[in-house]
This record gives sequence, structure tokens and C-alpha cells, in this order.
Amino acid sequence: MKRKITNEELKHLLLRGDEAEIKEVIFDIHPVVILDLIHEDEEAAPQLLAHLSDEVIAGIVEEADDDEKYELLKQFSDVKQSHILEEMSLDEVTDLLGELEDEEQKAILAKLNREDREDVKELLTYGEDTAGGLMTTEFISIRAKNTVRQTLEYLQKSTDAETTYYLYVTDRSQVLKGVVSLRDIVSSPFDTNMLEITNPNVISVRYDEDQEQVAKTFEKYGFVMMPVVDEENHMLGVITVDDIMDVMQEEMTEDIHRLGQVGKEERIDSKLGESLKSRLPWLVTNLFTAVLAAMVISYFEGTISQVVSLATIMPIVTGMGGNAGTQSLTIVVRGLSLGELSKENALRILRKEIGVGMLSGLVIGILIASGAMLFEGNPVFGLVTGIAMFLNMMLANIAGYFIPVVLEKCHVDPALASGVFVTTVTDVLGFLFFLGLATMALPYLL
Amino acid sequence: MKRKITNEELKHLLLRGDEAEIKEVIFDIHPVVILDLIHEDEEAAPQLLAHLSDEVIAGIVEEADDDEKYELLKQFSDVKQSHILEEMSLDEVTDLLGELEDEEQKAILAKLNREDREDVKELLTYGEDTAGGLMTTEFISIRAKNTVRQTLEYLQKSTDAETTYYLYVTDRSQVLKGVVSLRDIVSSPFDTNMLEITNPNVISVRYDEDQEQVAKTFEKYGFVMMPVVDEENHMLGVITVDDIMDVMQEEMTEDIHRLGQVGKEERIDSKLGESLKSRLPWLVTNLFTAVLAAMVISYFEGTISQVVSLATIMPIVTGMGGNAGTQSLTIVVRGLSLGELSKENALRILRKEIGVGMLSGLVIGILIASGAMLFEGNPVFGLVTGIAMFLNMMLANIAGYFIPVVLEKCHVDPALASGVFVTTVTDVLGFLFFLGLATMALPYLL
Repeated sequence: MKRKITNEELKHLLLRGDEAEIKEVIFDIHPVVILDLIHEDEEAAPQLLAHLSDEVIAGIVEEADDDEKYELLKQFSDVKQSHILEEMSLDEVTDLLGELEDEEQKAILAKLNREDREDVKELLTYGEDTAGGLMTTEFISIRAKNTVRQTLEYLQKSTDAETTYYLYVTDRSQVLKGVVSLRDIVSSPFDTNMLEITNPNVISVRYDEDQEQVAKTFEKYGFVMMPVVDEENHMLGVITVDDIMDVMQEEMTEDIHRLGQVGKEERIDSKLGESLKSRLPWLVTNLFTAVLAAMVISYFEGTISQVVSLATIMPIVTGMGGNAGTQSLTIVVRGLSLGELSKENALRILRKEIGVGMLSGLVIGILIASGAMLFEGNPVFGLVTGIAMFLNMMLANIAGYFIPVVLEKCHVDPALASGVFVTTVTDVLGFLFFLGLATMALPYLL
Repeated sequence: MKRKITNEELKHLLLRGDEAEIKEVIFDIHPVVILDLIHEDEEAAPQLLAHLSDEVIAGIVEEADDDEKYELLKQFSDVKQSHILEEMSLDEVTDLLGELEDEEQKAILAKLNREDREDVKELLTYGEDTAGGLMTTEFISIRAKNTVRQTLEYLQKSTDAETTYYLYVTDRSQVLKGVVSLRDIVSSPFDTNMLEITNPNVISVRYDEDQEQVAKTFEKYGFVMMPVVDEENHMLGVITVDDIMDVMQEEMTEDIHRLGQVGKEERIDSKLGESLKSRLPWLVTNLFTAVLAAMVISYFEGTISQVVSLATIMPIVTGMGGNAGTQSLTIVVRGLSLGELSKENALRILRKEIGVGMLSGLVIGILIASGAMLFEGNPVFGLVTGIAMFLNMMLANIAGYFIPVVLEKCHVDPALASGVFVTTVTDVLGFLFFLGLATMALPYLL
């Protein structure tokens, strides 16, 4: 049996450059392992890559981050780049091109062979966030008229079989007719007719389906690979689950960023200008909200001037309302995105949110009312605070439920804007309740 | 070729109960499709399931949500339940048990055959959120001394081969020695020695590794299946990528909930009591923060009583600081969880955050200063507001960077508590800067 090789040994072997020995072990090494070696010692990268075959380098480039792929490729001569590109999966070449400026794109396209170039140009026409943008056009399609033995012999001859778990059965005009799993092929007797193990109920995705929806389909069925078809069920390509995991991470970052009110493209290592562009629009939007709330306060300046402690307590009422509203919208936004809110349970959930708002409003309201009463030495002051707190928390939860639901109905991502609306409600109403009640009760507060 | 069957046809067939015809088509139907039919028409569930084999029902139960599995199973007689359980994957049986009360658990365990019961009891000993808790003990392990043809013949005979993409090579004492992909088996000539296509550099996870870490490894390498080993590299089980996608969703919900300050277990359809338990502790924590901020205001009541418009403007200063701090912490928390913050880029990112805070503080500060100046008709009032805004936004971003980083260093999930700390900073300091500056500039504000 072949020997296991440690990362340290691998590094030394690559640096030593014994091509015979490298060739012997390299196909058992995951390209990510070599990529890790390069990341650990960037300066040694050219030597580490020097004695590797085009195919291995192609694997490493494919595993690199999108913005790193071109950096890796650029190190090589134009001819070598051509050879590496030829070994790469076409969806990876397309992703690479998506990161580049026009000039660089043209240069890379020129290095592809004609067939690949046509395929890549077609892949580039699909929306980046659609099934078409995720798929690769390299898949194994078969006619199902053979036996298992004949199919195995065919597979043994097709040298550039992509990582594959399923074979797709198509007719003469490439219409998708069925699917066969490798598992069924290896566990069926050699003389089994392929038709017997072909599943005609193949589940596919349309090329223009949104990637988030595609990811949901993968999750729902637990697939590792899915075929992509056009309007007439012609097979266009396949999507593999590793790309879907990337989509899930991307969509997750998008949701978290939207809830935190930053642009979906911003990363921790974004440049200053990018970060500003991602955040300032949200800050300006929030400024409007804040000014709106300030206008409410300003209306009650007369009351505040008579009972200054109102100014001390009022941010507690709005702040706590904001927290409750954010909690409620977090649960509702996540529930919407997991598809857990339905017509059947909508009313029950609304009632629950109102209940939670009233009960937590009661608890927090009593706490804060007692505090305010002690602080000001006036039971009416406590009562005003408690009632305002209770009302604001109840309405915070109602807003936290309705705002995302209405946005979703209007086909706006609820994660995107719910936060601003909810805090607008809790700030404006919080100040209104508290200062309004205080004004009504003013004779008892002086 | 077999005919494709629509969901409507399938439903009619199942209700009609023609067992011969059902048997002919059922293995080409994904269990999720039948589960969908049951969800669409809950009342028809018993009839829909009545004529299905134990194996098919096992597949449907496996695909059901954790809290639905037992409901489905309960419909059947004890004997039938035994048969269904026998057909289920052991990790799914374990998940099912994890959802049940002690009594129900015992009843289910009693229905398992002895071997399965021992395996399940062992699986139950692993932490639910660890690799051991995710794995199934049903996998195909081989000795690598045969040819491809012999292996294929072996696989053709092993009838209950689980969904599998890899075969694992172990020695006599079950120590993991290598891995062979089905793809290599089907694309290698029949007389190839298995040793030639066995990869000794097999990447595995330890049984006690946290599921979030396991998911990261799957993503990094793009695996669809990974072996789980113990301290001495004995093979214990395998994890498949469909379970990993569930883990990713679960971890994502957890992060979003923590950022929104609700318990990680709460769901949109949680009961009132559960929701209260999930949210009240956070609200009470935030109440302390709010009271702390109120104490700062209270200290300056003298100033406010002389210039009441300070009360109108002050929530803008703290609110905008809170927004900026939340933006900054969102980016940093997400960056930490994606592993994108390193020793090398930490200082650069801190400088960027300060820069973003200063520049957006400048923009928002000028906007708000102009507004305040016009509102109050006093340039000093505008200046005080602008400077306080600038300072608070700069410090908001510094807090948004440091608080999650420090929490991570202390092995506390930064998503969990960063929000409270950041708003404490922006509220307390915001009021302090604004009212403090106003007090210093008081003669010019009257």
C-alpha cells in the first residue's frame, strides 16, 4: 500500500523537485493541502508549483479564493496558462473571468481552446446568482440502452470524467430523460440492463432559478449533484454541492449584513472607501429616523422644561422598545427565510408576538416603573413610565411582526429594511407615549 | 424505459393501493416527494403510507423534520415500527431518540434489534453537536488487496449498502488506512489492483470535534462524505454532506439569533413561554445598560433644565453611534466567524474601522451640526452637537472592532454579547460627550 505523506514531507518533496516521486504521490493529495502550503509560505509559491503538472495546478487554482485565482495563474507563461486553463472546470474558469477587468478577461479568453471558449462565453451569459451561473457544462450523459458492464467499460475509457456521482440519461436532442447513480452501477450485476437502474423521475433546476432557491432544493432533497435544464428540458449542465455550500455561506453573509445594515459586498478586509460606501447610506437613512424622533421630543419641550427628569428616563423607554422590536423581527425574518411562516400559522404567531410583547412589557414596565418611582419619589411618574414602556413594547413586537411580513409581500428582502422601520416605530411611538402621557399627567408630576 | 410519474399520479396510485404497480415505481421516487404529499393532505397520510414497504417508510421518516419523525412512526403497529426502524439509518434513529422523552426513548430502543440497539446507545453517548453526534456507523470498509472486478462483485452482493460515494480501507483492527472513490472504481479497468487507486492521505475528523468545525472542513475541501475516527485513528463512522447542510443552517440561525439577542432555540412557531424565556433575559440585560445611560443624563439634569433643546438632540447622538457601532461589529463578527481576521491584517482592519468611524462621523456630524444650528439658531449648539457626534461615531467603530475581538479571545461567541456592550459604550459615551460638551459651553448656549 502507498505510504501516507505528511504536509511537511510534501513541502520538502515539492521544493526538492523530484518529478518522478512527485508524480507518484501527487494525485493522492487534495489540492487544498498544497494551497495551504502556499499560504503558509507565500515566497516559496513559485518553487512549490514549479514541478507540478498542469492538471494539478488547475486543481489548486480552482480551490483558491476567487480573487486569488488570477494571481496564481499569472505566475506562469502564456502557453502554460493555456494548458492549465484547459484542465480547469469550465464553471471555475467562468468564475475567474467574472473577477477580472475587460482587458484581462479578453487575454484569458484568448488562451482557451475554441470549444472551451464558446462554452465559457455561454456560461458568462447566465446571471451570476442563478443556476446557470453555478453550473459546469462538463458532465457525463449516456443513452440507457447498454448493460452495466458496457457502461463501466465506457467510463473506463472516458479519461476526463469530472468528479461525478450521477450519470444523466438524455435522448438524441439532449432532452433529460433520467438519472443513474454510480452507487447503483457498482452494486448491480454486470449484465443488468441500464434501463432497469435508470430513474426517470429526475429532479432538475431551471438555468434561470435564483441560487438561493437552488440551495434550498439541494437541502430539501439532500442531493450532492443536480442537473440544470432549459425551458424545454434540454440538459445544460450540472451543479455540485460544494458550490452550493459556498452559496449558503454567501447568502448567510448577505442576511447578517442586511440585518446589521451594511452592504452585502463588504468584507472585514474591505478598503476604507468600500466600507464607507457600504455603511454611509444606511447611516443617512437612520439619521432621518432619528430626526423624526427628535421632532416628537421637540414638540414636548414645554413639558420637559417643567419636569427635567423626563429627559433622563425617556431614552430607556425607546431603547427597550427598540430591543424588543429587534428581537421580534429577528425571529420573524429568520422564520420567513426558512419558509416557516405560512397562512395557517400566521395569525397564531401574530397573537404570540403580541402576547410576548405584553408580558415582557409588563415585566420590564413594572421594573422600570418601580425604579422611576423611587428615583423621582412620585408614584404618578412611575405609572406614566410603566404604561409607556408597556405600550411601546407591545407595539414594538407588533411592528417586529408586521414590517418584515409586509416587506416580504412587497417582494423586498425583509432583512434589508425591517430594522430601520422597526426602530422608527419604537423611537417615535416611545417618545410620543411617554411624553404624551407625562403632559396629560403634568399637574401630578410637578 | 420506465415512465416518469407526476406527483398527482403518484398520489392516486398510493391511494388506490395497487401494490404491484407501487412496487414497480416506488424506488424511483424521492421520499421527500411522498412527504410533500403527506404535508399537502395530512388526513390522507395513513392511506398514503398504507401500501408502502418498510424500507420506503423508513426513507420518509428519515426525511421528516426531527419533531415530525415520531408522529409518523407512531401510526404503525409495534411490529411494523420495529421493521421500519431496522431499515432506518442509525444516525437518524439517534436523532429521533434525541427528540423524545425518556419513556418514549425506551419504547423505541426496545423495538430495535440487539446490534442496532448497541450501536444507537453508543451514538447517543456522543455530544449532539460533535462529529460523533452527526455520524452514522453504517459505512463500507474494505481491505485493499483485491482487484476492481472483485470489489465490484463484493459490492453487488452487499445488499444494504448505504448511500455512499467512498469506500474506506481499514486494517484488521479497524484503523483507517485509506479511501477509494466510487468514481475511481468505475473508471479503472477491471483488473486494476485496488491498492493502486487507494488514497492513503485520507482526511478525517475526530469524533469529539465541534460540528461547526466539521462543517468548515467539508466546505474547505468540498467533500461530500468524511470518515470519523477516534484518538487512535480507528474508524467509527461517516458523515455525509446532507447532514452538514443542516448544520450550516443551524449555525446560521444561531448566529443571527445571537446578533438579534434572542435564544438560539427559539423558532417562529415557538410557544409563548419559550419565546419569553428566549427574550426576557436579554431585555433585562439591556435594561441595565439603559439605566446606566440614564444615570449619565441624570447627572446633567441641571444643564438640560437650562437648555431644554439638548433633550431633543441627545437621542440622535446616541442612536447614530449605536447604528455605526452595530455596523462595525456586524462586519467584525462575520469576519471572525469566516476566519478572515488574522494577526497579519488585524492592525490594518482596526485602522480602517477608525478611519470609517472618523469619516462617517465627519459626514453625519456636519449634517447634524447644520441641522442643530438651524433648529436652535446658535452656532455653538451646532458645534457641540457635531463634535459629540464625531467622537461618538469614532468610538462606536473602535468598540465595534475591539469588543467582538476581545470576546473571541476570551472564548465567548462574539455574536452572543457584542451588541449589548457596543450599545452600552455608544449610549453612555454619547450622552457623556454631548451633555459634557454642552455643560462646558453652557454660557454660549443660553
